[in-house]
Amino acid sequence: MGWTCRLAGSCSLEGGRAEQLMVLIGSGAAAQVITSQGTHGSYLTMQLGSALGAVFGIFVSRGVSGAQLNVVWSMSLWILGRQPWRKVPLYALSHLLGAFLGAATVYLQYYDAIQVFSGGHLSVAGPNATAGIFCSYPADHLSVWGGIVDQVVATALLLICCLAVEDRRQGLLPDGLAPVLVGALILTIGLSMGSNCGFPLNPARDLGPRLFTFIAGWGEEVFKAGGGWWWVPIVAPFVGGLLGTLIYELLIEVHHPHTPQSPGQESEAVELEEFKSRISHLLEKL
Amino acid sequence: MGWTCRLAGSCSLEGGRAEQLMVLIGSGAAAQVITSQGTHGSYLTMQLGSALGAVFGIFVSRGVSGAQLNVVWSMSLWILGRQPWRKVPLYALSHLLGAFLGAATVYLQYYDAIQVFSGGHLSVAGPNATAGIFCSYPADHLSVWGGIVDQVVATALLLICCLAVEDRRQGLLPDGLAPVLVGALILTIGLSMGSNCGFPLNPARDLGPRLFTFIAGWGEEVFKAGGGWWWVPIVAPFVGGLLGTLIYELLIEVHHPHTPQSPGQESEAVELEEFKSRISHLLEKL
Amino acid sequence: MGWTCRLAGSCSLEGGRAEQLMVLIGSGAAAQVITSQGTHGSYLTMQLGSALGAVFGIFVSRGVSGAQLNVVWSMSLWILGRQPWRKVPLYALSHLLGAFLGAATVYLQYYDAIQVFSGGHLSVAGPNATAGIFCSYPADHLSVWGGIVDQVVATALLLICCLAVEDRRQGLLPDGLAPVLVGALILTIGLSMGSNCGFPLNPARDLGPRLFTFIAGWGEEVFKAGGGWWWVPIVAPFVGGLLGTLIYELLIEVHHPHTPQSPGQESEAVELEEFKSRISHLLEKL
Amino acid sequence: MGWTCRLAGSCSLEGGRAEQLMVLIGSGAAAQVITSQGTHGSYLTMQLGSALGAVFGIFVSRGVSGAQLNVVWSMSLWILGRQPWRKVPLYALSHLLGAFLGAATVYLQYYDAIQVFSGGHLSVAGPNATAGIFCSYPADHLSVWGGIVDQVVATALLLICCLAVEDRRQGLLPDGLAPVLVGALILTIGLSMGSNCGFPLNPARDLGPRLFTFIAGWGEEVFKAGGGWWWVPIVAPFVGGLLGTLIYELLIEVHHPHTPQSPGQESEAVELEEFKSRISHLLEKL
Repeated sequence: MGWTCRLAGSCSLEGGRAEQLMVLIGSGAAAQVITSQGTHGSYLTMQLGSALGAVFGIFVSRGVSGAQLNVVWSMSLWILGRQPWRKVPLYALSHLLGAFLGAATVYLQYYDAIQVFSGGHLSVAGPNATAGIFCSYPADHLSVWGGIVDQVVATALLLICCLAVEDRRQGLLPDGLAPVLVGALILTIGLSMGSNCGFPLNPARDLGPRLFTFIAGWGEEVFKAGGGWWWVPIVAPFVGGLLGTLIYELLIEVHHPHTPQSPGQESEAVELEEFKSRISHLLEKL
Repeated sequence: MGWTCRLAGSCSLEGGRAEQLMVLIGSGAAAQVITSQGTHGSYLTMQLGSALGAVFGIFVSRGVSGAQLNVVWSMSLWILGRQPWRKVPLYALSHLLGAFLGAATVYLQYYDAIQVFSGGHLSVAGPNATAGIFCSYPADHLSVWGGIVDQVVATALLLICCLAVEDRRQGLLPDGLAPVLVGALILTIGLSMGSNCGFPLNPARDLGPRLFTFIAGWGEEVFKAGGGWWWVPIVAPFVGGLLGTLIYELLIEVHHPHTPQSPGQESEAVELEEFKSRISHLLEKL
Repeated sequence: MGWTCRLAGSCSLEGGRAEQLMVLIGSGAAAQVITSQGTHGSYLTMQLGSALGAVFGIFVSRGVSGAQLNVVWSMSLWILGRQPWRKVPLYALSHLLGAFLGAATVYLQYYDAIQVFSGGHLSVAGPNATAGIFCSYPADHLSVWGGIVDQVVATALLLICCLAVEDRRQGLLPDGLAPVLVGALILTIGLSMGSNCGFPLNPARDLGPRLFTFIAGWGEEVFKAGGGWWWVPIVAPFVGGLLGTLIYELLIEVHHPHTPQSPGQESEAVELEEFKSRISHLLEKL
Repeated sequence: MGWTCRLAGSCSLEGGRAEQLMVLIGSGAAAQVITSQGTHGSYLTMQLGSALGAVFGIFVSRGVSGAQLNVVWSMSLWILGRQPWRKVPLYALSHLLGAFLGAATVYLQYYDAIQVFSGGHLSVAGPNATAGIFCSYPADHLSVWGGIVDQVVATALLLICCLAVEDRRQGLLPDGLAPVLVGALILTIGLSMGSNCGFPLNPARDLGPRLFTFIAGWGEEVFKAGGGWWWVPIVAPFVGGLLGTLIYELLIEVHHPHTPQSPGQESEAVELEEFKSRISHLLEKL
């Protein structure tokens, strides 16, 4: 028990460090484009930064924590019965801390650039706004409901594709390809679902840097902006993650031609049985 | 028989869901660039979106349906004797439904953005046109014959390269690389054959979203635009797919140094025999 | 003997078809950017097109001809004693034909676009020039000697890196990775050595489309332009290819820690012996 | 002993040649964008050039020197006890020479372009500055302390991620993937930490080309510019590399679930023991 706890703690600490690295790279890419006013990058380079941040976050932590960099993913693994529920809040806390520290490192590295670009005034909106470097804010056109729909759809897509990439029944990938595919997935979502509110997808990764900017000088505007936007990227990803997990589990994984336990056993009855057992397993969790 | 039917139905249903995901990502990338007026992407990011949509569509469905996301590919596999003809219309219907639902999901996710960008007027042409998010329209310079040639060439290229990537005689790829290569192929066609009419390549993927826009408020202009363009991306890809399959089969696969059945049997006579048998096999299908 | 000849002919025919595909994709990407005046692509998408054209050209032909898509590479394999010299002119002719047909296919596919963009006047220079879609022309700043140096350096780099990627002593790559790396190499050269004269690198791939444009209406200006530039991309790549092969062979491959034939035999004397034998082998060819 | 010395010399010579190739590609990509005034590339293509230069530098040398292209990496391998300290200065000298020759090759290849762009006046600052092609200079907004922080953070990130990619405990990558990942890492740092001072990261790669430009006509301004910037990219990467090695070693690698020597031996005591032994090992080196 003591050992399990320590291991869980150590794993989630790992997750925190990986989260810090992910934020350092992802927010760094945004800082570079924003403070250089587009001379040192473009929208595409920012998305590539987010994607590559996830790739190397996974590479740094895959041996230890199995690369859980998003608490929505941790929740999904719990729903699917692949890890105990205790790990979920541990990861959440550790990600929050890691994301906070990552934001602090970006501010340290871009201190001169942010000071010059913003004229020393750290603001959330306007032409010299710099808060968008660290966490998500909605575009002007977006309603709160639109933001919720956007995040539910995007996180559901994230979970469906991650589960498909991880699914050994779909064929075993060469070691090292999965992290790259997850990065490609983040890029995908950034390129196709990024203009509404910057695809936060990850509650702790959004809240941690928001807390940092709140403390570091951007003030309470980080919570007030966008009509009190801050809670949407915390709540909606869980809804989307749950939806994505259910869609994958009920509509895709169940239909797989599964390896029969004994020859001849392969029949419609067996498949139906498995379908029922999966549904009842999922219902228990909800 | 009952089992086979159910399995075929389930597989094509899978294909439909993968199609929905592919349209959600691909059209989402277009929606992002168009409604943000290029601030959140570029022509390249749209093509990357289409390519990555195909990659993850394949990853989600490869375990079940063998990742048939284009009815032209299904037709080609039938011509080559790798699946019964009954599967082709099943896939066509399921893709049509999936593409329709994918377009609906994009509209849901970009509802606010499309309303603001278009000023509430859903139009097919003009500076605030939004129909191009969902399906293909020809460029001003393109004649109908030019469009047919473009689609025949592009789909033939698609089939030749897909058959080459899948061809085990050309060497076995690591599991997971083939979907990435198909994505790279979609990107290739988007970058080198996309400016004439947006490389539809896929009848159901073009018609499904067109039907959605017809119903959702863009009206009958979606069928009238481009001099009644809508039928070209349905018919021409089949012609191109047939052409590409024949080219690959007759000019490339036949020339492979094939493994001889018994030592010494390797002779010109054997190769000629195989060439004849392949041709007669293909002629039966036509 | 008859069989060998036929096989060689068939292989080089394959190479020709792969060359056609490579030109179709590469020149298509240029046609798209030029005729759309940059709205459907950028310098980067053109280079990606060239790179991806090479990737799929290799995938289509790797099973048959071992993917020889550049006669400079064929020459290098002959110098290294890996194929008879007879194959080199066969490949050259077949590549020339393939590149000619590839250019014709691009012209067919972009006929409408080229007519509208050029106002029906097919020209080599000026704001509506379209000859650059098909083959290389030097930038205004480039002297003939500068062009020769550029092509010698670029082709030497191409050969050194291709030999390194193919070199089994450097470790065996997963099947399918090598073609992708060759594509990445073409992209690399396009991004770092493309602004002087468009990195032709490949004599037949440059001359074939030049002959096509000569016949198809651009006229003798295709040979006169750039101070009679046309011969540079034919001659210089052979010089660069020879240089690259020698550099790799003498300075890199020889230094590899080679597997000793018998234990204890591994000594400086053996290494010196191998070095001498390689040099004398190379001198024979020159 | 004599053999070891020769081998070490040969390896570091290899490293030098790989370094030359890396600079040739990386600085070539910068030369192309700068002298074409952005018509033949963008900020992204420059970063891709740097990344691909590293990839092919590694492919060319991986069989011989194990691809040590940065003396900071050589230092880190020594700290971790994976190579003797004698190799570090050998690599440093050989990299310096290689980077110098790489810069010379770029100047040769872009001689015409640089002459025309700069009007024949080789300058370090101003609108026609060309010194930035070859080595790093700080942005106007950057203080010396900011530059040190930037380079310490960036090199620490480089080392952490390289150690993670190389770490066999984290799972064995397919041969050939590691060089591509290192390239992706260089791209990552270029996109997220490149706007402050162009991410030198590599003392010899920065100093070698600086010495070349000093001699070739840019004069002593290359050492005076940026308030005597030149020593920062030499000193700071060593600090960052040391920091990154320590972070990886103490905070990540130690926590790996290691293979127990005998069943049952796996206990907290064993882990603590390993942690202590690693720390004392590291302290010895410092």
